[in-house]
Amino acid sequence: MKDILRGNAVVGQSGGPTAAINATLTGVIKGALENECIETLYGMRNGIEGLMAERFVDLSALFADESEQNALIHTPAAALGSCRKKLPSPDSEKAEDIAVFERIFEVFEKYSIKYFFYIGGNDSMDTVAKLSKYAARKGIADSVRIMGVPKTIDNDLAITDHAPGFGSAAKDVATTVNEIIRDCAVYTVKAVTIVEIMGRDAGWLTASAGVGAYIGADAPDLIYLPERSFDMNEFFTSLRVAFEKHPNIVVAVSEGIKFADGRYVGEGTQSGAVDVFGHRYLAGTAKVLEQAVKAEFGCKVRSIELNLPQRCAAHLASATDLEESVAIGRAAVRAAANEGASGEMVYFKRLSSKPYACEIEHCSVLDVANYISALPDDYINAEGNYITEACADYILPLIKGEASPAYENGLPKYVRL
Amino acid sequence: MKDILRGNAVVGQSGGPTAAINATLTGVIKGALENECIETLYGMRNGIEGLMAERFVDLSALFADESEQNALIHTPAAALGSCRKKLPSPDSEKAEDIAVFERIFEVFEKYSIKYFFYIGGNDSMDTVAKLSKYAARKGIADSVRIMGVPKTIDNDLAITDHAPGFGSAAKDVATTVNEIIRDCAVYTVKAVTIVEIMGRDAGWLTASAGVGAYIGADAPDLIYLPERSFDMNEFFTSLRVAFEKHPNIVVAVSEGIKFADGRYVGEGTQSGAVDVFGHRYLAGTAKVLEQAVKAEFGCKVRSIELNLPQRCAAHLASATDLEESVAIGRAAVRAAANEGASGEMVYFKRLSSKPYACEIEHCSVLDVANYISALPDDYINAEGNYITEACADYILPLIKGEASPAYENGLPKYVRL
Repeated sequence: MKDILRGNAVVGQSGGPTAAINATLTGVIKGALENECIETLYGMRNGIEGLMAERFVDLSALFADESEQNALIHTPAAALGSCRKKLPSPDSEKAEDIAVFERIFEVFEKYSIKYFFYIGGNDSMDTVAKLSKYAARKGIADSVRIMGVPKTIDNDLAITDHAPGFGSAAKDVATTVNEIIRDCAVYTVKAVTIVEIMGRDAGWLTASAGVGAYIGADAPDLIYLPERSFDMNEFFTSLRVAFEKHPNIVVAVSEGIKFADGRYVGEGTQSGAVDVFGHRYLAGTAKVLEQAVKAEFGCKVRSIELNLPQRCAAHLASATDLEESVAIGRAAVRAAANEGASGEMVYFKRLSSKPYACEIEHCSVLDVANYISALPDDYINAEGNYITEACADYILPLIKGEASPAYENGLPKYVRL
Repeated sequence: MKDILRGNAVVGQSGGPTAAINATLTGVIKGALENECIETLYGMRNGIEGLMAERFVDLSALFADESEQNALIHTPAAALGSCRKKLPSPDSEKAEDIAVFERIFEVFEKYSIKYFFYIGGNDSMDTVAKLSKYAARKGIADSVRIMGVPKTIDNDLAITDHAPGFGSAAKDVATTVNEIIRDCAVYTVKAVTIVEIMGRDAGWLTASAGVGAYIGADAPDLIYLPERSFDMNEFFTSLRVAFEKHPNIVVAVSEGIKFADGRYVGEGTQSGAVDVFGHRYLAGTAKVLEQAVKAEFGCKVRSIELNLPQRCAAHLASATDLEESVAIGRAAVRAAANEGASGEMVYFKRLSSKPYACEIEHCSVLDVANYISALPDDYINAEGNYITEACADYILPLIKGEASPAYENGLPKYVRL
């Protein structure tokens, strides 16, 4: 048991928005409000950038009321704003790099911040790891407890069974693809519809499009995931087989599928562009396939990029996901304040799928940062063009339950900070 | 008062799917079940094509039960299937054209069909008009009553205040654009997001993206409609003005916007392709603008095509739209069976917007077929880059209320026929 550490706390959101990241923020708020070690919980605007600029909001005051908390739970995208800032190496000897860390810890001291919570994906856990390492090197690790709280629609974080935000995005993808299939089924002419789904390195979200196949609902004819290399001729062969069953083929593809030689299928249109973390920017995987199928089959082909709505459709959030997201935010506060955890990330450990049961634990953020969790082999069929029942069994509990926001004048009522 | 006509009825769905077209079908089913003049209500699969091929389902038997009817109300896309078949001119002297009409009336006789209901948009009303004209020319207009029932997400049908299906699509567009705005607001870097919305000839659906501006909710910065010609330099000027307020600009554009010389903005990518009704196929309006803005401003630009989900997102249907869609289907049966209407279309007449009140009337289909109802001048601002409050007042009652489908295993439970 660590010493009791009293003072203020700060929370930030980083990386891409999700429909559940504010539910996790609400969990941290609830945790801070109910924990007597924490005086004031500040929210940093735009992640670590806002912290360095002292752009804070007093969340303890703004969300003292439970009805305000409930509205925040249902609001999509990072209410505090986000950033994509990558911290320098804590081992760097460069003056400008050292200045970044010094500035951050100066702000901690100025605001009596004893707890730092960072909600984000892989790149955000990298930030948590670097801050922890810097504090350890400087011998000031006891002055502030630094915790990562996972979120990512991509579900590609290591250690955790699944990431908050994934369930809601998966529910949106499964529902939307289901509705697209209904739409495409109305005509009798031969047609292929290719739906492009997010997930650069792991196919979790694309896999979600197929869960209907195992519960008697509609599902795509073919599913292509980045975990298997993509072969255009095998794809054409699979389409021919599918056409024998019905004229309207719907194909779900991950934006990140690659050919055997490592080239992204979608590279045709956006070659070379990279983001600040060095990830190549992809767009147009479905567009490239649309053109290829049109050339090969000469039939009607349509491509649909699900795009941003799949990650911010809070109106279709998974009740399970929102509940768990609140719970994990709360657990992060408990772990840091009551157990003295620091340099760690809270995560879900699945106990059972049928019936579904999970518990929340915490581990070193070093075991998480910069690893990618992809679909295991037995979640993908032998042909590499569909998910297995084991995969559906994994995903289905996460999309369970509907968590409607409040509506006003026909539109969801979301919180603005 | 016309004579009482006893016999069977047939109903079909045609044109593009909507989230409410099965609600209208359910209304026709309810009307037929409660009207003693009608023995059996057949559903023709894939519209008039299915009728000619005698591909029928017995809807009176399948949907006798109210719980089955309720599930159908919430199911998106045409449950009977659709077609895009254009009938020849009823005045044609060509043998193959005459054969089409003879075949249709032969099927009517074979199945003792006395009532024909066709749910669709402009092109479907063209079918209703031609069948009516043929029947009149042949002196058999008394043998079968032919009724059009409107539907279109585009809301571009003449006479009717609005079309069933529009309210749900409008609700989906307004909600989704709202969520996209939340998503885009999280970063501080200068960025433009261009959202492309359906509506080839009329901007109703694109206009719906802006209703939030008049009720204190989020709304795009700029809205471009096909009712005004598009000027790239004026667009750049408006973007510069918008950037003075905040760094994240969201623009809603109709797929059908044109330059002053009549060229579609989106023509760059899909030139020349036309559908069977001679409409030019458009894709890529937002893509073309994305490239133009990137070249001019050098900032991050993203384009999002809302695509099929905006017309088939039954999980986000407007309760007002679904109720009205059922009511108008029912009214079509009453008009034909009780009042002897034929060659007509049922439509909504708005009595008031505040409070909202509509009644259902019917008119000659000739007043509807092949006309386009576009936004009136006072629904668009002087600069041609936004909707007015009058436009929001018109749209808001139509998106009111949430009509959730039943869910099973986390997914909406839809009916398959």
